[in-house]
Amino acid sequence: MNIVDIILKKRYKQDLTFEEIDYFVRGVTDGSIPDYQISALLMAIVLNGMHRQEMTNLTLCMADSGTYADLSYCRGIPVDKHSTGGVGDKVTPLLLPLLATFEVDSVKLSGRGLGFTGGTIDKFESIKGFNTAIPTADFPRLVNETGMVLSAQTPDLAPADKILYALRDVTGTVDSIPLIASSIMSKKIAGGAKALVLDVTCGSGAFMKTRERADKLAAAMRTIGRLAQIKTVCVITDMDQPLGRTCGNTLEMQEVMETFTGRGAPDVIRVVCTLAVQLIKLAKKTGGMSDEDLYKECEIRLTTGPALAKFFELLASQGGELSPSGPVYRELPHEAMRITSPVDGYVKHIQADKIGMISVKLGAGRVQKTDEIDYGAGICFYAKVGDRVRRGDVICSLCHGVSRNVSDDLLFDLMEEIYDCYEFSDEPVETSDPIIKILD
Amino acid sequence: MNIVDIILKKRYKQDLTFEEIDYFVRGVTDGSIPDYQISALLMAIVLNGMHRQEMTNLTLCMADSGTYADLSYCRGIPVDKHSTGGVGDKVTPLLLPLLATFEVDSVKLSGRGLGFTGGTIDKFESIKGFNTAIPTADFPRLVNETGMVLSAQTPDLAPADKILYALRDVTGTVDSIPLIASSIMSKKIAGGAKALVLDVTCGSGAFMKTRERADKLAAAMRTIGRLAQIKTVCVITDMDQPLGRTCGNTLEMQEVMETFTGRGAPDVIRVVCTLAVQLIKLAKKTGGMSDEDLYKECEIRLTTGPALAKFFELLASQGGELSPSGPVYRELPHEAMRITSPVDGYVKHIQADKIGMISVKLGAGRVQKTDEIDYGAGICFYAKVGDRVRRGDVICSLCHGVSRNVSDDLLFDLMEEIYDCYEFSDEPVETSDPIIKILD
Repeated sequence: MNIVDIILKKRYKQDLTFEEIDYFVRGVTDGSIPDYQISALLMAIVLNGMHRQEMTNLTLCMADSGTYADLSYCRGIPVDKHSTGGVGDKVTPLLLPLLATFEVDSVKLSGRGLGFTGGTIDKFESIKGFNTAIPTADFPRLVNETGMVLSAQTPDLAPADKILYALRDVTGTVDSIPLIASSIMSKKIAGGAKALVLDVTCGSGAFMKTRERADKLAAAMRTIGRLAQIKTVCVITDMDQPLGRTCGNTLEMQEVMETFTGRGAPDVIRVVCTLAVQLIKLAKKTGGMSDEDLYKECEIRLTTGPALAKFFELLASQGGELSPSGPVYRELPHEAMRITSPVDGYVKHIQADKIGMISVKLGAGRVQKTDEIDYGAGICFYAKVGDRVRRGDVICSLCHGVSRNVSDDLLFDLMEEIYDCYEFSDEPVETSDPIIKILD
Repeated sequence: MNIVDIILKKRYKQDLTFEEIDYFVRGVTDGSIPDYQISALLMAIVLNGMHRQEMTNLTLCMADSGTYADLSYCRGIPVDKHSTGGVGDKVTPLLLPLLATFEVDSVKLSGRGLGFTGGTIDKFESIKGFNTAIPTADFPRLVNETGMVLSAQTPDLAPADKILYALRDVTGTVDSIPLIASSIMSKKIAGGAKALVLDVTCGSGAFMKTRERADKLAAAMRTIGRLAQIKTVCVITDMDQPLGRTCGNTLEMQEVMETFTGRGAPDVIRVVCTLAVQLIKLAKKTGGMSDEDLYKECEIRLTTGPALAKFFELLASQGGELSPSGPVYRELPHEAMRITSPVDGYVKHIQADKIGMISVKLGAGRVQKTDEIDYGAGICFYAKVGDRVRRGDVICSLCHGVSRNVSDDLLFDLMEEIYDCYEFSDEPVETSDPIIKILD
């Protein structure tokens, strides 16, 4: 077998066999195929696509490039959740404690933020002392203690995917349904889950900008799940504006605390409880409740205390500092500039990916992997889609860490950029359910 | 400017600006853009194409990546000829001496063979002592003495093209009209010619397998020529069977000698004289002759002695050994196996690219650039398309160098492969003019 022939096959739109994909993934993993041939094949896959058997084989070969986790120490059927990412997405820190109240264990391996989307690991690291580099050997003990463990991805999990992802990031080959689907599914399969709930975000703040693309990605992942015999539920959620009231690391953890204490944003609660219901069902921990009852029970446990108690357990078990009033943050946000509505009217749209990039420019995220972040930086949203605003009302604010400095020039530039993100209407704007569709 | 954005632009089928192409070519030349990003962009160009202004800009930027040759020492308008390659293509060693008899000077930079096509440099090097590494500084003296110089490509000519070509070769991105057209044209522009004749080969023995592809490549190169203000004539020639009666290095130089002495194959003479007429016209050296008269004069000079005298001058001026009976070869061919017709009938088709690869397996060419070649190896064609054959007639023979050994096993395997290349018909087969079209 020869890698040039494999590239040529895909270049001429032919299907790759299992043996060819296996040869490719092995060569990626052991370094025998040079980067330039990998990236040529990736671009050919991006432009000429992959059929479902090819995607599935790519997924299985990537999962097989490292070790498989054994989650038999979890109570019941081991489940996992994955989100395709978004702006202001603080679902994981809310979901894990909520699931724990149902005895649904979580072994959650998360990533850091890159580009316009944030990352769960960064959010947890905004809490002083919280350790996200948990040795795999400690997972069973932590799960046994709290029902949860949250860690950065371990390097032995689907190493081929890591190599491919790093290369895709710098070769314009990130945006591809077969590559995204196989990347996500390979990690989940290697991670040991026997059932999955995938939060497929859709809209301006997501990688899938259109409903059509989100549907395609969901279908691709469900197909892979079916062929790989992992029960896979997809929930397509609206990410056409930022989720909730904040984006930025400390800001989002503060919003998480508000949600646990009954003052959360409705869209956040809706997404968390919907995903929770699906996960609890897959884990067979419904206790005989109907979907409706289960959903209501989730809302109650999420917002009235039980989930908060589990959240504190999680923080404590991984070294997070807690004061009587809640988590101790590495850096508190300072609201440096409030931005007001230029019109009387209704918020029609908030271009979420651009919002995400503004947040990155404030210091909340990374342009390059090695960039340092300001945990206190981010944006608060005072008006969201559908809200009535009067000229001069604060619509959002720009924040940076209290110990940091951001120049006025930058703030004014970002204010201009914020105005480009907000769209207003004279007419009332209807709001829609953040849950677009559940494919179970 | 950022290379990932440029890759993404082409990935999404947008046109690249001059500035973007210039940035890319500079980055390729100075090594600041890594291979894996180059190959991703190349694959995106292969699959999403380039419009004519983009191709032209790519050509001009690649030409500009090195030095430009100054051909002002040539008599009249400096012209150049290029062939897109084929099996048995011995046009250059015939054409240069013929042109010299019309005071049309040639500064010919040629390549070595790779894959199924031969290379002019290898053919000349089959002659003992012939030096193909001529320093650029010696070109004017040699042209002044004989009207010709033939040399391997100098590394300062379009270095970006060299880097891109090497990468295309190993990333399945060779076959692309915009990349082929800009590669050829960049070298010709940097080479200093003010007018070009391009022999665009077409058929099974060429890179352009179909008439449609050949037309597209010709159109692309003519467009680039027009926009770059280089008068460009394309001659589309038939390469659906090997050209002439041999392929292989010594074998072809022997056929060249036969052609100069009046025993040449009609298809070879037809192609050489047609190209010569176009080049003599572009160089404005027709001496007032009509196209028809000029063509006849070319035939006479090619086959009755004048061109042979110039050929010997060329060989002598570059160190080639000459005996009273002609050139002295490094390795003489030994006819190791004669292959006979399995049927009574007519030769309908000879699959020329496969023939080229059989010749490579005999040792006449290279699979990898570093492979050594057997100058004596190759194939003689005793029956070509249209010829009537009887069962048992020799249709072709396999040769290797007299000092070499080729195993019987390999010869028998190659015989089987030869039978796969030849197609026979019960009915007489019409032959066609090897000149398909002239675009002037």
